[in-house]
Amino acid sequence: MTRDLTVAEVRLTPILVADPPLLNTQGVHQPYTPRLIVEVVTADGTTGLGETYGDTKYLELARPLAEHLTGRRVTDVNELFALDLAVDESRTGAAVDAGGLRGVQTADKLRLSVLSAFEVACLDAQGKASGLPVHALLGGRVRDSVEYSAYLFYKWAGHPDGVAAEPDDWGAALDPAGVVAQARRFTERHGFTSFKLKGGVFPPEEEIAAVRALAEAFPGRPLRLDPNGAWSVETALKVAGELHDVLEYLEDPTLGTPAMAEVSAATEVPLATNMCVTTFGEIREAFTRDAVQVLLCDHHYWGGLRNTGHLAAICAAFGVGLSMHSNTHLGISLAAMTQVAATVPGLHHACDSHYPWQAEDVLTERIAFTGGRVAVSDAPGLGVELDRDELARLHRRWAEDDGTLRDRDDAAAMRVADPGWRTPAMPRW
Amino acid sequence: MTRDLTVAEVRLTPILVADPPLLNTQGVHQPYTPRLIVEVVTADGTTGLGETYGDTKYLELARPLAEHLTGRRVTDVNELFALDLAVDESRTGAAVDAGGLRGVQTADKLRLSVLSAFEVACLDAQGKASGLPVHALLGGRVRDSVEYSAYLFYKWAGHPDGVAAEPDDWGAALDPAGVVAQARRFTERHGFTSFKLKGGVFPPEEEIAAVRALAEAFPGRPLRLDPNGAWSVETALKVAGELHDVLEYLEDPTLGTPAMAEVSAATEVPLATNMCVTTFGEIREAFTRDAVQVLLCDHHYWGGLRNTGHLAAICAAFGVGLSMHSNTHLGISLAAMTQVAATVPGLHHACDSHYPWQAEDVLTERIAFTGGRVAVSDAPGLGVELDRDELARLHRRWAEDDGTLRDRDDAAAMRVADPGWRTPAMPRW
Repeated sequence: MTRDLTVAEVRLTPILVADPPLLNTQGVHQPYTPRLIVEVVTADGTTGLGETYGDTKYLELARPLAEHLTGRRVTDVNELFALDLAVDESRTGAAVDAGGLRGVQTADKLRLSVLSAFEVACLDAQGKASGLPVHALLGGRVRDSVEYSAYLFYKWAGHPDGVAAEPDDWGAALDPAGVVAQARRFTERHGFTSFKLKGGVFPPEEEIAAVRALAEAFPGRPLRLDPNGAWSVETALKVAGELHDVLEYLEDPTLGTPAMAEVSAATEVPLATNMCVTTFGEIREAFTRDAVQVLLCDHHYWGGLRNTGHLAAICAAFGVGLSMHSNTHLGISLAAMTQVAATVPGLHHACDSHYPWQAEDVLTERIAFTGGRVAVSDAPGLGVELDRDELARLHRRWAEDDGTLRDRDDAAAMRVADPGWRTPAMPRW
Repeated sequence: MTRDLTVAEVRLTPILVADPPLLNTQGVHQPYTPRLIVEVVTADGTTGLGETYGDTKYLELARPLAEHLTGRRVTDVNELFALDLAVDESRTGAAVDAGGLRGVQTADKLRLSVLSAFEVACLDAQGKASGLPVHALLGGRVRDSVEYSAYLFYKWAGHPDGVAAEPDDWGAALDPAGVVAQARRFTERHGFTSFKLKGGVFPPEEEIAAVRALAEAFPGRPLRLDPNGAWSVETALKVAGELHDVLEYLEDPTLGTPAMAEVSAATEVPLATNMCVTTFGEIREAFTRDAVQVLLCDHHYWGGLRNTGHLAAICAAFGVGLSMHSNTHLGISLAAMTQVAATVPGLHHACDSHYPWQAEDVLTERIAFTGGRVAVSDAPGLGVELDRDELARLHRRWAEDDGTLRDRDDAAAMRVADPGWRTPAMPRW
C-alpha cells in the first residue's frame, strides 16, 4: 500500500524552446527561450515533473535545492520553503527583469520561482504514487475544464534575417487587420472565445484601433489589453475612457501601485496586474488602496500550487478578482496551471497561456484546447508524460548555445533587427 | 497500489462530554457539552475521523452533508464547500451565540463549522489510505512539535449541588491565589510555559491582580488575558495600561472591529481576536484598520485545515500574527489542530487548547502534552484511533439527555446556581 516517497534523484535539464518573434514593450521574444525541466525521482522509481524559467540565475538556485531535496520525501515541501538558499540580491539585477515583464524582481521571488517547479514535481510524484491527480492533492477540482484566453501578440512574420530560428506559420500581425486575423486563427484552431492583446508596442491610438477592430469582429466577447506598464496615468485614463465599453479589464496600464491606484480611482474599467503585485509582500498596499480589481496569479513566481490557493483566498477575502498570468511555457506548466485552476472556486476570468505559440514541447502528447478550454485530467499526478528524445534534443540546443540565448533578453533580440534599440524608459507614452 | 477512496458510509455520532464548571463572562460551562464525531468510511474500509460542535443546529446540517458525501471520494473536498446547504439564517439566532463566545454567528460560519469536521475526516481517511500523515497532505510539517498554552479558568470546585456531573480534581479558582495554584498544576502535569486566563468573569481590577500574581509566580513567561469582549474601550485601555509590561497579548478586550481598532490605536499591547474576525468576510475591515495584531485561527469555524492554511497566508501577507483558538474539544480535534499547526510557518504563539480540562475522550490513547508541547504524529492520517466503547457510552449520555444539554448554553447553566442570572449586556465593565 505505502510507496517509498523518498527522493532518490533530482534531474535538472535546461532547454531552449523555439519562440516566435512576439513583440512587447521591451523588445521581441528571442528565437529560443530558456526553460528548466525538473524531474524528481522517488526511491521506488516514480518520476514527478516540474517546469520553470530556465535562465542561468534560476538554474544556479535549482542545483543546491536539488541536492537538498535528495534523501527527503516528496511530501516534505513546506520545509523547502523555509530553507535559506542564500540568494544573492545582486543576482536579481534591475528592478524589472529584462525579458519577463513580471514586476519587481526580488531575491525572494527568484527563490519562489525555482521552488515552484520543485513543488509541482513533488506533487506530480505524490499523485502518481498514490494514484491521485494533483487536483485531488489540493482538495479536488470544482470544475472539469479550465477556460483560457487567446493571447494575441503583435508579431513579425519571422525572426530577423540571418538569425537561427524555427519558422512559424502565424504570419505577421502589425496592425488591426493583422490582430483580427490572428484572433480568427486562434478561434479556428483552439476555439478561444476571449482575447488578450499584448500592447505597449505601438502608440496607444494604434492599439485602441486594434481592440476596436477585435470588438467589431467578435462582438460581446471579453477583451483585454496589456501594455506592460508602458503608459502614463494620463494615457492610461485616455485609453480606458476610449475602450471602457469593450474591455473586460485593462492590464498593467502603468507601473507601480501608486500610479495604478490613481488610474483605478478615475475609471470604471477594472484594472488587472501581474506587475505591481507579484509577491505576498506587495498585496497589502495594493489591496488597501484598491489599486487593482483583478490579480493575475502565476504559480511559477508565487511559489507553487498551494501558494496559488492561498493567493486565491486572499483575493476572495478582499473582493479582488482572479485570473492567471503566463510567460512562454510548455505542457508541464500548462498541466500544472490547469490542475490548480480547477481547484480555485473564485476563478472567474479565462486564464492566459502562451502555449499555442509553442510548436515544441517535451510531452509525448500535446495538451489540447477545445472550445478554448483544457479538460482537467483525472489521471495520476499532472497526467502528462515526458518525451525524453525531445527533452534531449532541446537540451542539446541549450548545451550548444554560446550563452547568448541562455538568459532571456527581449531588448537584445530587438537589437538584432534594430541596433539602436534600448529598453525604453517608462512610461513610453 | 491505488485504494478505492469512494465514501461508502458517513457515521454521525453526537455525544455529551463531561466539562468542569469553568466560568466565562456569559456564565459557566454546562456539566456536559455536546460534540459531534464524524466517521467517513471508504469503500475499502478505511475510516477517517472528524470532530466539531455537536449542538442541534450543527447536527441538522451534518445529516444532508453526510448524504451528499456518500458515493463521492474523500479527495473531493473542495466541491463540498461549493454546495448549497440551504442554511436557514433563522437557525443562527443571536448575533453572538450563547455558549461559544466565538463572534458573530452567520449561516456561512455554521456551514463551515460542520464542513470542517468532514474535511478533517476525509483527510484522515486519505492519509490512512496512502500511508501519509495529514500534515504531509498539507505540504509537510515545518516543526516536530506544537506548543500549547495553559488555558486557565476561574472555576468552581464543582457543578451546583443536585446537578448530575462528573467530579474533577482541579478544585476552585476564584482569586489570584487560586489562579496561580491552577497554573502551577498545569505546569506540573503538562509542562506548559505560557498562560492564558479566561477573564470577563470578575471586575477588571481582580483579573489584573490575577495576571500580576501569575507574572510574579512565573516571571518572564508569556501571559494572556481574554475577557471575551466584556470591557468598554476605556476599561480595555486601563487594563492594557496596567498590564502592558507582562502581557504577550490582550485578547478581545472589547466587542467589534471599530472598538478594537480604537483600543489598538491607543495601546502598545498587541490585541488578539477570535471574536471580531471569525470569517473571511471580516478580515478586510479589521486588517486595514489595524484592529488586531494577532489572529486566533480555529479550523472548526474557519472551515477546515486547508482554510486554516489560507488564513495563515493572509495573516502573513498583512503582518498579522497567528495563534490558535479553542473551545471544549476532544482528541480528534487536538490531533487535527496539531497537524495543521505543524505546517504553518508563521505560527509564533502557543496555541490554546481546552483538552487538559476534558477527562473523557473517544480515543484509545489520550494525546499527551510534554513540556507544554504535543509531538506531531507521523503516523498515517491524524494518527489517532477511536475507542468505540467510549464513543458509545458518551453517545448514550446524549441519547438519554432530555434535550436540556444538547445545545450548549452557559447562561442556562449559570441560572442553576443563580436563578436571576441573565446573559450580561456588553460591555459589562
